[in-house]
Amino acid sequence: MAETRFDIVAMGDAIVDVIASCDDAFLDTHGLPRGSMQLMTPEAADRLYDAMGMAREMSGGSAANSMAGIAAMGGRSAFIGQVAEDQLGMIFEHDMHALGVHFDTPPLVDGPPTGRCLILVTPDGQRTMNTAPGASHELTADAISPALIRDSAILYLEGYLFGPEKPRAAMMKAIDYAHEASREVAFTLSESVCIAGRRGAFQDMIDNKGVDLLFANEDELRQLTGHDDLDVALALMAGKVPTLVITKGAQGAMALQDGHRTEISAAPVEKVVDTTGAGDMFAAGFLAARAKGKPVRQCLETGAKAAAEVISHFGARPEANMKELVAL
Amino acid sequence: MAETRFDIVAMGDAIVDVIASCDDAFLDTHGLPRGSMQLMTPEAADRLYDAMGMAREMSGGSAANSMAGIAAMGGRSAFIGQVAEDQLGMIFEHDMHALGVHFDTPPLVDGPPTGRCLILVTPDGQRTMNTAPGASHELTADAISPALIRDSAILYLEGYLFGPEKPRAAMMKAIDYAHEASREVAFTLSESVCIAGRRGAFQDMIDNKGVDLLFANEDELRQLTGHDDLDVALALMAGKVPTLVITKGAQGAMALQDGHRTEISAAPVEKVVDTTGAGDMFAAGFLAARAKGKPVRQCLETGAKAAAEVISHFGARPEANMKELVAL
Repeated sequence: MAETRFDIVAMGDAIVDVIASCDDAFLDTHGLPRGSMQLMTPEAADRLYDAMGMAREMSGGSAANSMAGIAAMGGRSAFIGQVAEDQLGMIFEHDMHALGVHFDTPPLVDGPPTGRCLILVTPDGQRTMNTAPGASHELTADAISPALIRDSAILYLEGYLFGPEKPRAAMMKAIDYAHEASREVAFTLSESVCIAGRRGAFQDMIDNKGVDLLFANEDELRQLTGHDDLDVALALMAGKVPTLVITKGAQGAMALQDGHRTEISAAPVEKVVDTTGAGDMFAAGFLAARAKGKPVRQCLETGAKAAAEVISHFGARPEANMKELVAL
Repeated sequence: MAETRFDIVAMGDAIVDVIASCDDAFLDTHGLPRGSMQLMTPEAADRLYDAMGMAREMSGGSAANSMAGIAAMGGRSAFIGQVAEDQLGMIFEHDMHALGVHFDTPPLVDGPPTGRCLILVTPDGQRTMNTAPGASHELTADAISPALIRDSAILYLEGYLFGPEKPRAAMMKAIDYAHEASREVAFTLSESVCIAGRRGAFQDMIDNKGVDLLFANEDELRQLTGHDDLDVALALMAGKVPTLVITKGAQGAMALQDGHRTEISAAPVEKVVDTTGAGDMFAAGFLAARAKGKPVRQCLETGAKAAAEVISHFGARPEANMKELVAL
């Protein structure tokens, strides 16, 4: 395969994180399940924000974090996502460009503001996410450049963006462009809440061979297949996607590929400060290694190293010298 | 003196910090003196922002940080400052309220955007600040509520805001309200760059007994008095302000009050991560203790403890349990 301009191009939410610490009682008071992600109306998000403590703002978005991570590891990444023409949108765009991620989706002029994710971090480092997607869910197929998809070895899609209709249609179009150019399509299920109510659409995409590489955790896999027995769920899905990658948090990760199962432990972490971005950085490490043609075990291990870095501090994007850390 | 509603009310820049790491070469390339503060036009700030790395945003402003610190220490603080009606202004307002700081200056509707301070942190933890003050310098005397000034034991004023004409006039009015109600007026010179070109105005304010408590570092004191010999400068200024507090960074701090000199060492810090906010937290600790009627040595020591906390992490506002730390 000829060298492409980018290793990975991703489509995902273009969002700014608003991160505050809170105690466990705060989650109870506001009826927020620990460790969950929920979508919020702008009004509900405003109410929650009013109640939250002093926050710090950092660019976020799941696949966007992954592309930031890949750039930090020395990979060539690009991102497609929708911000509005406002201050948070400018912050998001700045941070992508500052990291060397190619990003040129034009900002939305008349419409909702740039999306925010209100992230509450409890003393144990667990994050509970409350997303007001705003402009992010207004992404349309018009924003997809066929040339950009063709010019990237891997197309990476985020489950969070598979819910709303317009971005989902844009993703399906991007899959077509990618496969026409013989590119690999990777997909992350993102969160079990993204699957409920749209299992059929996910299954259709997978049954139609839309996905070559699927990232999921065990909960998401059960949700998607409808099988509570994990071995049954694994066997079923492994028959449908060429590479299936299962993340298991502190228990590590595994991949099923070509009938082989590869398991790894999680990388050691001195103190878990904030788990935000763990899954995003795992995917970043895995994809950065895969784009360099590394074997699946090294892909898993690179993902685990990157995830360990990001949970050792506040915020969903890496702070350490990632090139040295992953040494690809 | 009857109990007031607030311990301290401050007037200062209402600004959001945009904090990024950089290497020393970056400062050289952009002609930014290490550890300095410069005011920037919006265009220059945009150019610098474009060149900066990925950033995190946090509410800032010197006196605003101090009021945040005082609230965190269990003090009752209020703030007067000008934001615009935009996303950064909402962030600033949210963070003040989240900390329990009284803040009700109405946002500016037609005018420049909320001010930003682009903060570059070098590997040694030194911060170089580049401020685009925006709406912040549009503060007028109309924003000053005489009742709020009367209802606060101490009025605290920030030198950064003494440069532009409108906020300076507002400050002079606030000093009158405070003294009419027999309140103490504290002033920080903020930065030597704030003194250049307006030494006369500073001296007039001080000669007219506008200031009861002056915070300065040695450079600022030399600039203000025009005397390079520190002992001469100290003696001169000590004759003009009832309490003179001199901060000396890693060398600690001292106070001259009623002919007595009190010196303390800096509080120990394991690792200096980011010096942003050290002076602000020193003032916060000093003022919080003073509002509780503590002797000047304890005021200095409380300031030093608060400063040590804030330089041990990124950002200008405290993260530790400040009530326990200062135990007032």
